[in-house]
Amino acid sequence: MKTHRKELWFETSTRIAFINITGQVEDALRASGVREGLCLVNAMHISASVFINDDERGLHHDFTQFLEKLAPHEPTAQYRHNDTGEDNADSHIKRQVMGREVVVAITAGKLDFGPWEQIFYGEFDGRRRKRVLVKIVGE
Amino acid sequence: MKTHRKELWFETSTRIAFINITGQVEDALRASGVREGLCLVNAMHISASVFINDDERGLHHDFTQFLEKLAPHEPTAQYRHNDTGEDNADSHIKRQVMGREVVVAITAGKLDFGPWEQIFYGEFDGRRRKRVLVKIVGE
Amino acid sequence: MKTHRKELWFETSTRIAFINITGQVEDALRASGVREGLCLVNAMHISASVFINDDERGLHHDFTQFLEKLAPHEPTAQYRHNDTGEDNADSHIKRQVMGREVVVAITAGKLDFGPWEQIFYGEFDGRRRKRVLVKIVGE
Repeated sequence: MKTHRKELWFETSTRIAFINITGQVEDALRASGVREGLCLVNAMHISASVFINDDERGLHHDFTQFLEKLAPHEPTAQYRHNDTGEDNADSHIKRQVMGREVVVAITAGKLDFGPWEQIFYGEFDGRRRKRVLVKIVGE
Repeated sequence: MKTHRKELWFETSTRIAFINITGQVEDALRASGVREGLCLVNAMHISASVFINDDERGLHHDFTQFLEKLAPHEPTAQYRHNDTGEDNADSHIKRQVMGREVVVAITAGKLDFGPWEQIFYGEFDGRRRKRVLVKIVGE
Repeated sequence: MKTHRKELWFETSTRIAFINITGQVEDALRASGVREGLCLVNAMHISASVFINDDERGLHHDFTQFLEKLAPHEPTAQYRHNDTGEDNADSHIKRQVMGREVVVAITAGKLDFGPWEQIFYGEFDGRRRKRVLVKIVGE
């Protein structure tokens, strides 16, 4: 059994951002030499997500609108978490809805994807350095 | 280490549908010969889900109502994704809430389930041929 | 390849509860002897979740408020699932939003976590004995 570990680092200029990380995960897979197995990709921070969906700018706008309506950032005083001095309770909720991680099959040395699947880093409390973990297990 | 790969195909007659695929995943597990390991089951399309919940028709009605209230299909012009000529922005959002994939433990050659766990394909933009991937890793 | 299986049991005194199970998962990992691999932690019941977020009481209050607004318990007659004699349709929906499972990387014999990641059991229909499965695969 082979394993491979890679951290990806991000610092977005906006509070909310979606970044296509498929190429970076494919790079990690090539470096691993794994041909058959599983690839875990997870946010290492609890106000960010990793998810799979469409690389389409309009959809990312729709996700942002949807999440902001569901768990609005303002007024920050509506959340008890923000009594701690934080202002990111909404980011923790948004991340929970979008998910922490994806597990992708590895077949014949490639991410075993359907036609439109792309992996995204979803940032909900940006403007600071944050990490994604790629862990590859197989042979 | 053994791996096994199987695609399941679906074409639903309605836009939204829930299909119990537990038996088909169990068939793939038997074919794999794996006794201990992990079984990944994921939608290969980004407007569909794989999730685990109850096989009860009333609950599926409740899921549909819940998701339709959260991210209504109509009016389609409320979503920027639909400016591309698509009308399925809501389907991408619904899939994100319900999840893309499940990972199930394999113990003694069986899906290691609690008493009511059943695996579902959740379709949110049906009436076309779409796929689910089953990937089994273990020994 | 090594595998290890452990069940964790819970019986909460309230309908909704969040319990930090990180220490129990770390105990299972130590018992497994696995140094590199993947750790699956999933609710075995379909009205409960396992998720990763912050161990902060205010945030758990916010999650509860958020979920109750999204899928209120009362009036129970608003859900078709409850026509079966159950009163927990909302619990199935809440679990779906929060997720069934997490998959955590194992690196050098430890859960490979970011600075604030903690694993929680999320109960949405408590006051009965329910289980979480920990399945560790690696070497």
